[in-house]
Amino acid sequence: MLPAEIIKKKRNKLELTKEEIEFFILSYTRHQIPDYQMSALLMAIYFNGMSNAETVALTRTMLHSGVVVDTSSIPGFKVDKHSTGGVGDKTSLILGPIVAAAGLYVPMISGRGLGHTGGTLDKLESIPGFNTQQTLERFVELTKKIGTCFIGQTKEICPADKKIYALRDVTATVESLPLICASIMSKKMAEGIDGLVLDVKFGSGAFMKTADDARKLANALMDIAKSYNKKVISVISSMNQPLGRFSGNALEVFECIEIMKNKSFRSAAGKDLYADTRELSLQLSAHMIHLTGKTTSIDEAYALAKKVLESGAALKKFEELCAEQSGNLSALPMPKEKVDLHATVGGFLASYDVEKIGLAGIILRAGRMITEDKIHPTSGIEFHVQIGDSIKAGDLIYTIHGDESHHFASAYQMLHNSFEISLQKPSEHVLIKEVLG
Amino acid sequence: MLPAEIIKKKRNKLELTKEEIEFFILSYTRHQIPDYQMSALLMAIYFNGMSNAETVALTRTMLHSGVVVDTSSIPGFKVDKHSTGGVGDKTSLILGPIVAAAGLYVPMISGRGLGHTGGTLDKLESIPGFNTQQTLERFVELTKKIGTCFIGQTKEICPADKKIYALRDVTATVESLPLICASIMSKKMAEGIDGLVLDVKFGSGAFMKTADDARKLANALMDIAKSYNKKVISVISSMNQPLGRFSGNALEVFECIEIMKNKSFRSAAGKDLYADTRELSLQLSAHMIHLTGKTTSIDEAYALAKKVLESGAALKKFEELCAEQSGNLSALPMPKEKVDLHATVGGFLASYDVEKIGLAGIILRAGRMITEDKIHPTSGIEFHVQIGDSIKAGDLIYTIHGDESHHFASAYQMLHNSFEISLQKPSEHVLIKEVLG
Repeated sequence: MLPAEIIKKKRNKLELTKEEIEFFILSYTRHQIPDYQMSALLMAIYFNGMSNAETVALTRTMLHSGVVVDTSSIPGFKVDKHSTGGVGDKTSLILGPIVAAAGLYVPMISGRGLGHTGGTLDKLESIPGFNTQQTLERFVELTKKIGTCFIGQTKEICPADKKIYALRDVTATVESLPLICASIMSKKMAEGIDGLVLDVKFGSGAFMKTADDARKLANALMDIAKSYNKKVISVISSMNQPLGRFSGNALEVFECIEIMKNKSFRSAAGKDLYADTRELSLQLSAHMIHLTGKTTSIDEAYALAKKVLESGAALKKFEELCAEQSGNLSALPMPKEKVDLHATVGGFLASYDVEKIGLAGIILRAGRMITEDKIHPTSGIEFHVQIGDSIKAGDLIYTIHGDESHHFASAYQMLHNSFEISLQKPSEHVLIKEVLG
Repeated sequence: MLPAEIIKKKRNKLELTKEEIEFFILSYTRHQIPDYQMSALLMAIYFNGMSNAETVALTRTMLHSGVVVDTSSIPGFKVDKHSTGGVGDKTSLILGPIVAAAGLYVPMISGRGLGHTGGTLDKLESIPGFNTQQTLERFVELTKKIGTCFIGQTKEICPADKKIYALRDVTATVESLPLICASIMSKKMAEGIDGLVLDVKFGSGAFMKTADDARKLANALMDIAKSYNKKVISVISSMNQPLGRFSGNALEVFECIEIMKNKSFRSAAGKDLYADTRELSLQLSAHMIHLTGKTTSIDEAYALAKKVLESGAALKKFEELCAEQSGNLSALPMPKEKVDLHATVGGFLASYDVEKIGLAGIILRAGRMITEDKIHPTSGIEFHVQIGDSIKAGDLIYTIHGDESHHFASAYQMLHNSFEISLQKPSEHVLIKEVLG
């Protein structure tokens, strides 16, 4: 098999065989095919897509370029959640502990933030000492002991995906449905789980701008999970508004702890700014619990999730896993500097450009533009208003937080153009659009 | 400017600016942009094309990545010809000497064969000792002295094109109109010529399968030449039949010498098998001569070309340039082995699959599949019949020539499937379809 002929075949919109995909991906992983041929193939896939069979074969090859975690020593059903990413999306930190506190097992291998969306690992690493680099043996051991454990991708897991993802990032080939599906699902299938809840986001801060496109992505991801006989459902949720009160790593951890302590935080409009994060975490937890077969209805699962959250059992799990992963929660750093951004006109908060909010986060170093960028853990943005809120000129819209105020001016400028105020009241913002099974 | 953003822009079908094209191409040439980003951009260009302005900017950047030959010391109009390539296409070796013998100047920088089409350099290098690697100073000096000179691309000329072409070859990005145009024209514009005759081929052995597509390519090439204020015309000629009696390097040189000696070679059907090569060479020579302004009509230019060919003056020029470039014409090697391929049914020779004939040439090592392949100078194929000829079962169709008969069987198999015999007489094969100015 000649690499250039395989590229040409995909370029000419012909379906690649399982063997061709395997040959190309494994040879690339072994450095027998150079980067420049892989990037040409990736761009051809960007333009011509992949069939279901091709995407399944790509996922399988990436998965088997490394190991599948042996979770056989963990009793019963293992379940995880994957979100396609957004701004302020911090539910993993709450739902892992909730589901663990409900007596189930959540072995979670997470990623770092890239572009305008955040990553669970970066959030956890804002906790001083928190070690996300555990061996797979320790990962299994901790999951068994606590019920959940958060680690980063190790070099044993999907090395092909790791190498290909780094290349996609610098060759404008990230935004391809089959490549996204294979990358996500190869890593999830490597966790040794039995079921998966997908949080597929749509809106201005999501990869998929419309609910329709999010549905397509959800179905493509679920097709792959089903080809592995995994139980899977998708929650289609909105990223037309940042989730909760904060974005930014330490600030998001703070919000999660507040929620697990059953606190609320009222906005000027009288809304609890923690409500969306809490509700989405509970809904996703409920679907995870229900997927395991522990409950006979989603309502029952939701009630169980709510109970362990309100009882403080979830917080206890979170504190336990922080301690086991060497994180000193009581030393969580808080930002020293801040600047407020006010409305200059009155009306209703009509819409957010959530991607711009994410880009302001990158300016503040709360996120990264390229893999090498260093995160400033205390940097972030506080959201004071929500879509539909009535606004007067002078009302607080955002607070920019951080330790290094010299980034504030350009973040301010970006944020200034990230929302619209209209005279007409907009239609209500719906957090969860639907659930696909 | 970020390379990944420029790739993304082209991927999203937006027009790149002159500055973006220049930045990307020159940074790549200086090794500041890696191969994997260039190949992703090339694939995006393959899919989304380039505007005229982009193609002109790409040509200009590739041209100015190196030097333009200083031909100012050569008196008067300098003219060259470029063919888009075919099987048995050997006209350069005849028209260079004709136009030089007519008192004009043809500074010719040629390429090697790749894929199923042949290259002028490989043909010339079948003459023992012939040195195509001359300095640009010597190139100008010889053109001035003899009227024509044949050299290969030097490292001073379009280094960007050289580097990009090698990458296209292994990333399935050769077949892109704007990339082809920029590659051809940057090299031609580097020759320091005043005018250019393009031989744009269509048919089963050409890059462009239809005359319509050849016309499009011709117009795109001419647009670039005109942006440099060069005089340019295009001859649209057929590659639905291999040109002349032979393909293969030494065999083609032999055919050219025979033609320059005014010899003919009658086929079984009574046709002169040298006629097409002679006629296309004369037509192209006439257009080159007329472009210089030396004559008042194409007919007058054709008569002049015919006169210097028939007088032996062109042969004299060819012998002169061989001597100056250290080629020993009298030692031209001839193949030692041969095998004939006969028709198994009677009828009319209806069509050739000329690309298959070219591939048979590669099997015989008369051409190369990859740049590193070594050429066998004596290998080649002899054509005994032409489209429309009446054939009896047992008639000679091809003779395979070479020194290494162990390649013959698979070339035979390929050739066996490269022609069709029908009971109905096909329409006449027209060599020159039209001339575009």
